[in-house]
Amino acid sequence: MESSSSSSSTSDLTKEEFRKRLLNTLDARYFIKPSFKIYGAVAGLNDYGPPGCAVKQNVLAFWRKHFVLEENMLEVDCPCITPAVVFKASGHVDKFTDFMVKDEITGECHRADHLLKDFCTTKLEKDIATLSEEKVQEYKDVLATLDGISLEELGLKIKEYGILAQTTNNPLSAPYPFNLMFQTSIGPSSMTPGYMRPETAQGIFVNFKDLYYYNGNKLPFAAAQVGQAFRNEISPRQGLLRVREFTLAEIEHFVDPEDKSHPKFSEVADLEFWMFPRNEQLTRMDAVKVRLGDAVTNGAVNNETLGYFIGRVYLFLTRLGINKERLRFRQHLADEMAHYAVDCWDAEIECSYGWIECVGIADRSAYDLRAHSEKSGIPLVAHEKSSATTEVEKLVISPVKKELGREFKGDQKKIVEALEAMDEKEAMEMKAALELNGEVKFHVCTLEKAFTIKSNMVSISKEIQKEPQRVFTPSVIEPSFGIGRIIYCLFEHSFYTRQNKAGDEHQAVAKRISKSLTSSGICNETDATSKSIGKRYAIADELGVPFAITVDNTATVTIRERDSRDQIRVEIGKVACVMQDLIAGVRTLADTPGITVLSRFRMRFSDLYRLCLKILIPQ
Amino acid sequence: MESSSSSSSTSDLTKEEFRKRLLNTLDARYFIKPSFKIYGAVAGLNDYGPPGCAVKQNVLAFWRKHFVLEENMLEVDCPCITPAVVFKASGHVDKFTDFMVKDEITGECHRADHLLKDFCTTKLEKDIATLSEEKVQEYKDVLATLDGISLEELGLKIKEYGILAQTTNNPLSAPYPFNLMFQTSIGPSSMTPGYMRPETAQGIFVNFKDLYYYNGNKLPFAAAQVGQAFRNEISPRQGLLRVREFTLAEIEHFVDPEDKSHPKFSEVADLEFWMFPRNEQLTRMDAVKVRLGDAVTNGAVNNETLGYFIGRVYLFLTRLGINKERLRFRQHLADEMAHYAVDCWDAEIECSYGWIECVGIADRSAYDLRAHSEKSGIPLVAHEKSSATTEVEKLVISPVKKELGREFKGDQKKIVEALEAMDEKEAMEMKAALELNGEVKFHVCTLEKAFTIKSNMVSISKEIQKEPQRVFTPSVIEPSFGIGRIIYCLFEHSFYTRQNKAGDEHQAVAKRISKSLTSSGICNETDATSKSIGKRYAIADELGVPFAITVDNTATVTIRERDSRDQIRVEIGKVACVMQDLIAGVRTLADTPGITVLSRFRMRFSDLYRLCLKILIPQ
Repeated sequence: MESSSSSSSTSDLTKEEFRKRLLNTLDARYFIKPSFKIYGAVAGLNDYGPPGCAVKQNVLAFWRKHFVLEENMLEVDCPCITPAVVFKASGHVDKFTDFMVKDEITGECHRADHLLKDFCTTKLEKDIATLSEEKVQEYKDVLATLDGISLEELGLKIKEYGILAQTTNNPLSAPYPFNLMFQTSIGPSSMTPGYMRPETAQGIFVNFKDLYYYNGNKLPFAAAQVGQAFRNEISPRQGLLRVREFTLAEIEHFVDPEDKSHPKFSEVADLEFWMFPRNEQLTRMDAVKVRLGDAVTNGAVNNETLGYFIGRVYLFLTRLGINKERLRFRQHLADEMAHYAVDCWDAEIECSYGWIECVGIADRSAYDLRAHSEKSGIPLVAHEKSSATTEVEKLVISPVKKELGREFKGDQKKIVEALEAMDEKEAMEMKAALELNGEVKFHVCTLEKAFTIKSNMVSISKEIQKEPQRVFTPSVIEPSFGIGRIIYCLFEHSFYTRQNKAGDEHQAVAKRISKSLTSSGICNETDATSKSIGKRYAIADELGVPFAITVDNTATVTIRERDSRDQIRVEIGKVACVMQDLIAGVRTLADTPGITVLSRFRMRFSDLYRLCLKILIPQ
Repeated sequence: MESSSSSSSTSDLTKEEFRKRLLNTLDARYFIKPSFKIYGAVAGLNDYGPPGCAVKQNVLAFWRKHFVLEENMLEVDCPCITPAVVFKASGHVDKFTDFMVKDEITGECHRADHLLKDFCTTKLEKDIATLSEEKVQEYKDVLATLDGISLEELGLKIKEYGILAQTTNNPLSAPYPFNLMFQTSIGPSSMTPGYMRPETAQGIFVNFKDLYYYNGNKLPFAAAQVGQAFRNEISPRQGLLRVREFTLAEIEHFVDPEDKSHPKFSEVADLEFWMFPRNEQLTRMDAVKVRLGDAVTNGAVNNETLGYFIGRVYLFLTRLGINKERLRFRQHLADEMAHYAVDCWDAEIECSYGWIECVGIADRSAYDLRAHSEKSGIPLVAHEKSSATTEVEKLVISPVKKELGREFKGDQKKIVEALEAMDEKEAMEMKAALELNGEVKFHVCTLEKAFTIKSNMVSISKEIQKEPQRVFTPSVIEPSFGIGRIIYCLFEHSFYTRQNKAGDEHQAVAKRISKSLTSSGICNETDATSKSIGKRYAIADELGVPFAITVDNTATVTIRERDSRDQIRVEIGKVACVMQDLIAGVRTLADTPGITVLSRFRMRFSDLYRLCLKILIPQ
C-alpha cells in the first residue's frame, strides 16, 4: 500500500473487482477485520489491527494538529453513556429513526427504504425495455426523493409495488420507525434510562456554559471532541462505511449569529476545488470547480465561517492523501436539511461505492443550545455589553445550605447542585408543592436517592432583572468527521498494484498471442497467477489442457506438450501457425524447424475443456 | 498546578481539606467536571475539560511510547459493543457482579458490602469503649475478609447486625448479585444481546489467532489496546476513582507457559522500590523496599516476565510524576485472586482516599484463551515444531462453495465464513440434523438472516491427525492500567499551594504580635484573606472592631482606629504595650511618641465582639 492515485493496473478493474482486492488486502494485512470473528462476527463491527490502528492514530494526530491546535479549540472528552434526557432535548429520542419492515413469517428486519430502492433500481436496470415512459419516470422520481420520504408514502409504495422480503419472498409488515440509538440503563434501579451517544456533539452543547466561561466569556470559540459513537443500524451494508460503532471527530464553533465573518477566511479564499451547490444539483448533474472566495461572495456558501471550515476541511483531506479530483463539497438541498439548519455542505469522497459523505459541515443556527436551555432551564447564552438594557426574567433558586446541611449532612452539596439544576417547570412545580404541603420528595440523580425537601430548605422565585447587555444564543457551525469513512476512502485512493516493467511486456506479448490464437479459432486462456510455472503446468495437466505456452521474453515463447512434457521454443509471430498445425496433426513438435525437441511428440488432444491452451506469464 | 510533591502548606491540611481544595481546583480550572451538569449530573460520569483532556492525551502518548513502541506491541482497536457470547465465555455474564440490597420501602439500591463495611467501621470508631474484646475482633475480621465474602455470609451478617438502609432507616432486602455490565441489544430484532465491554482485554483474546499469525506464528509477543470500558456501579463513591465509564490501557503478553523468562529482565532487575508481598501482608502490616531482581530470585514474584512488567510499570508511573515513596506493589492474597491466576500484583498509589489500585499486573495463565477456544470451537493455540508427534482430533467443516454460491449468490462468502466458525457442538448438531432431514435452518449473524442449508452444501467430520509439533495454549501476563485513576493520583501528587517568602515573613510577624496581644489579655484575630486592605478595614469597621493592625514589614505595623480612621505606625516590639494603653484609655494616639497622628483620636471601644482587634497580612 503506497500513497498514489490509482494506477493503470487497478483502474482497469471494475469497481467491484478493485474493492474486492482492496478488502482482501485490508483483511490479509490486518488493517481492518470483522470483530468477534471466532464467534461468527457481528455485522457493522470491525477491529483495527496493528497497521490500521497506526493509520487511525496518525489521522487523529493530524486532525488535532490541523484543527484543534491551529484554531486553539477547546477539546473535551465526555462519556459515551448519556442519560436519556439529553437526547430527548436534542430530538434524537423522537427523530433519530430509520423505517423498518418485518418479514411476517420469519420476523427478520429490513430497512424499508433500502427495499424500495432495490426494487426501483432493479426495475430500471433489468425491465427497462418493457416499462412505459411514465413508469420509468415514476421509478426515477422515487429514487430521487427517497432521502426525505415519509413513513406513509413508504408504506403506500411498498404495498403498491407488492414488494416482498428478499431471499424469503414472504409478505412484509407495514413500515414503522426504529430508533437507531443503543439503549441501556444507568445505575442498578433502572430509574435512569440511557443511550450510547450517536454523536459526540451533545457532550459539547451541554457543556457550553463552562466552555464559554473557560474562554473568558468571549465569542467566537470552538470546542472539539474525538470519541466513539454508536448507531444501531437495521441492516448494515457497504462494509466499512456503514457500521454500528465508529470514531467521530466533531467541532462546534460558537459564533454571534449577527456576525459570522471569520478573520482567517482570506487564508482559504483562493482555494479552488469541486463544489456542487444546490442550484447545480437542481439544474444539471455536475459539480463545478469554484474559487471558495467566490462561493461565499455570491452567496452559494451562507457565510465566511462556514466557508472557512469548508476550506480547512479541503486542506485536511487533501493533505491526508485524498485525491482532490475525487473530492467534492455537495450542498444539502433545502428539503434535505433539518428545518433549523441555515446551510449544510458535505465533503463527499468518491470511492468504489460512489460518492460517500465523509464530513458534514453545517450551520445549525441556535437550535441545539436553545433545545438544551429549554429542557434544562439553564440559559445557554452569550452576553455582550451594550448601551441598551435588556429585561430578563430570571428563575432564582436559592437553596438554604444551612438547613440542608443540618438535615442531610454530607449529601448537602449534591442536593444543592441538583436543586440549582432544576428547570423552570420542575422548580415551579416544587414551589407549588412546598406552598401546598410544606414538603416534597426530590430525586437527586447524582446520589440516586430521593430526599424530603421542606419549605425552609429552598426558596424559589421569578425575578425580572434589567441588564445593560445584549443576551443571545450563539449559532453553531459544526464540522463533523467520520474518521472510519475517511480512512476507508484514504485506503481506496492509496491502493494500487505495483507492476514491474517486464510483467507489463509479458502481458502485452500474451495479449498479442491470445488474439492471434483466437482469430485462428484456437480456444485459449491466460494465466497470470503468481504460482510457479511448474505448478501451473501441473494444474494445466490436471485440467487436461494439451498444450501450454510460456512467454519467455518479447521475442520467443516455449510451447509445452502435456503428455510428453516436451518443450519447444518458437518465435512469437509463428505461434498461431505452429499451434494450428500441431492441433490439426499436420505436424508434430519434431517436424517443426528451429525447435529443440525434448522428446517424442504424441498427439492426444482433448476437447473436453474450453481451456485448450494456457498462456503463462512469469511474474 | 506544578509538578512537585506536597509542600509544607498542603501537608498541614487534613486529607479531606486537601482533597476538597484539589477537587475545587480541578473543577474550577476545568480539568474534570461532572458530566451532564445542566441536567443534574449522573453519578460516576465525568468530562475532561480542555486542560484535563491535554493531560490525558499526554499520559496516553507516553504510555504508547513507554510500552507499545518499546516492546513492539501489536496495538488493536476493537468495539466497545460486544455480543453476549464473548462475555459468557469469559465468565463476565455469570460472575462480574456486586451484591446489592434494596431499601424495602423506597426501592433504593445499595452495595451490600459497603453497608456492612460502614457498620463495622462506625462501631469500631464510635462504640469502641463499650464493645467487648470479642466483638472488636469480630468486626475487624469482617473488615479484613470483606473482599472475598460470599452472598450467604453477607446476608447473614446484615441480618445479625440488624443493618438498615442509610438515611431512611428502612429494612433491607436480602442481598442478591447485580451484574455490573451495561446491557444493550445489537440489531433491530433483539436477537443478539450485547454488553458494553467492562474491559478491553477480551477484544484481544478473541483476536489471538490473527495476532499470532501477524507475529509470524512466534511467541512471545504482546498486544495492546487503549479504549473506553464501562461498569454499571451500584452506587459510585470516591468521586473520580470509582466511575461508570473510564479509559483502560491494557497489555496482553502471550508467552510459552514452560518458559516465562524475559530477555530484558536484567534492565529492570536493579530497581528498588516498595513491595508488599503476600507474606508481609500476613505477618506484619508494612511494605518493604525490595530489589526487583531479588523478588524474582526468591520466588516472591512468580516469574521474570511478570517481574519485568512490574519494573516497567514502576518506571512508567514514576516518570509520569507519581511520588515513588507513595507507590507500592501489593501482591494479591491467595483467596483474593481468581482460581486460574498464577500470581497478581497491584500497583497501588497512596492518595487522600488511601492506597488505590491503579494498575493490575496478573499472570492469568491460559484461562482466557482456553475459555474462548472452548466456547467458539476455534483453537486459540500456539505451535512449536518438535521431534515428538501429537495426536489431535480435528473438526473438519468443508462448505461446498459451488453449491452455496448457486443457491445464495452474493451471500455465499459470509455463509461460508459462518459455517466455518461453528463450534464443535453446533457443527455436530448440524451434521445430525442434515443426516436426519437433509436440510437445516442456519442463522448467519453477519447477515442477520437465516438460511436453509442442505446436505450437499457442507460436509462435517472429525479427523484424528498426527502432528509433528507441540500444540499448547499460551499463558497471558496482563498489565491493565486505569488511566483515570492514574491521572487522579497524579493530580494529587502534583498539587501544592505556592507561597511567597514575604507572605511567610508577614505571617510570622502576625503570629508574634497575636501571641503578645493574647498574653496581654487582648482578644484578637488574624485575617489572611486576599481582599484588599481597604476592604478588610471596611469589613472590620462593620463588625465593630475598634482597632485594626496592618503588618507593614518585619519591623513596623500600622494601627488604625475605626471611628477616626486615624493611623499610627508602631514598632513591632511595642505593639502589645501601646494597645494595652490605648484600650485602657491610659493614652490616646496623639500621646504616643514617634507616631504620626492623622486626626483626633476618639475612644469608643466596643466589647460586643470577640474580634476586638484584626491583624491584616498583605498578600
